[in-house]
Amino acid sequence: MHSAGLRASAVARVTFVGGAQGEWTVERITAPRGALLAPVAAVRKVEAPEFVALDGVWALQGVRSNERYVEKREHVQLAAASAGLGRPESTCAALIPMSKSKAWWELSQDERRAILGERSGHIVKGSKYLPAIARRLFHGRDLGAEFDFLTWFEFSPADREAFEALLGELRRTEEWQYVEREVDVRLVRGAL
Amino acid sequence: MHSAGLRASAVARVTFVGGAQGEWTVERITAPRGALLAPVAAVRKVEAPEFVALDGVWALQGVRSNERYVEKREHVQLAAASAGLGRPESTCAALIPMSKSKAWWELSQDERRAILGERSGHIVKGSKYLPAIARRLFHGRDLGAEFDFLTWFEFSPADREAFEALLGELRRTEEWQYVEREVDVRLVRGAL
Repeated sequence: MHSAGLRASAVARVTFVGGAQGEWTVERITAPRGALLAPVAAVRKVEAPEFVALDGVWALQGVRSNERYVEKREHVQLAAASAGLGRPESTCAALIPMSKSKAWWELSQDERRAILGERSGHIVKGSKYLPAIARRLFHGRDLGAEFDFLTWFEFSPADREAFEALLGELRRTEEWQYVEREVDVRLVRGAL
Repeated sequence: MHSAGLRASAVARVTFVGGAQGEWTVERITAPRGALLAPVAAVRKVEAPEFVALDGVWALQGVRSNERYVEKREHVQLAAASAGLGRPESTCAALIPMSKSKAWWELSQDERRAILGERSGHIVKGSKYLPAIARRLFHGRDLGAEFDFLTWFEFSPADREAFEALLGELRRTEEWQYVEREVDVRLVRGAL
C-alpha cells in the first residue's frame, strides 16, 4: 500500500508470489473447498516492509498481526514447544490460504473462541505436532486480500505423514464448517 | 488498495479526509497524547468500497471489521440499546484516532479482554451513554494505517456534556495506559 497517512507499518507484511520461479518448488495445488489457485511452478515468500509487486501468476498478501484467540497460558506453552521457521532440515512446506464465511465473522468473540478453542481444539491439535510442524499465520481480511488467512507450515520429509494427520484432524472440526474456501499448496525447498 | 489478488472487500472501508471542505466543520483539534494532526477546516467521511484518494491535508484510513472483544450477551445488549448513526438531531460529532503501544499488542487475547472489559469497563461505560452517543469503530492497524483505530461518535448538542463525561471515564481506565497516541477532532454538521 502506498497512500498518504500511512506510517512505517506496525505489522510485518508478507507476499506469496506464485509464478515460474522461486525458492519453493510446487509439488501440487489442490482445493479442499472452493476455487483453486492457478497452477504455478514455484512460490516466493517475501516478508518485507511493503507488499511486493506481482511479477508472477498470483500474489497473496497478508500481515503478521496480534493474536486473536490464544490465551496467555497457551501462548507460553506454544512458545516453549516451538522451534521456529527456517530450520535446514525443514525442506517441505505448505501454504494454506483460507477464508471463512460471513456467519463466522458475525459471531461474537466468545463464540468464535469457544468454537475454535474449546470445541474444535485448534490450538491443542497444533501444539501436539510441535516442534516438528512449524507454522506462521498471516491475516488478510482487513486488507481486503483474496484470503482471510494464509498459513505457512514447514517440516522435514520425515514428518509428511504427521502433517497429513494434523490437517485431517483440523478439517474434521466444527470450526472447519465455517471454512468457505481452502487451497492447499505443497512445496519443497529448492529453485527449479 | 489496488493490487492483484484482492477480492471485492469483505470489510467496509472508510476514509476521513481533512481539508478545506467537507460536510463536517471542525470546531477544534487537540491531542490528549502524542502528535497532533495538521489543522484543517473540515472533514469528509467517506465509507466506500475503496479508500478515496487524498485531496486534502490528511486522509485517515480504516475498515469495519469483526468484533474483537465484545461477547455475545454484550452484543445483544448493545444492539438493543443503540440508535445508529445519521440521526437528524445528531449535529455534533467527534473523530478520535488512536494507537496503542507495542506492549498492548503483545498481550494475549484473554489479557487484552480482561483489561478492556473486566478491569476498565470499556463496553459498560459506552453502553451507559446509549442511545444518545452513537459510535462506530474502524480498524487501521493491519492496514499499516496511521492509527490503530478511528472511532466516530455522533450526538446532539444537548449531549455534549455527556460525551465529555464518557471520554473522561475512558481516559482514566487501565486500558488507556496503553494508549500511545490520541487525537480528538470535534465537528459540527454543515459545510463551511
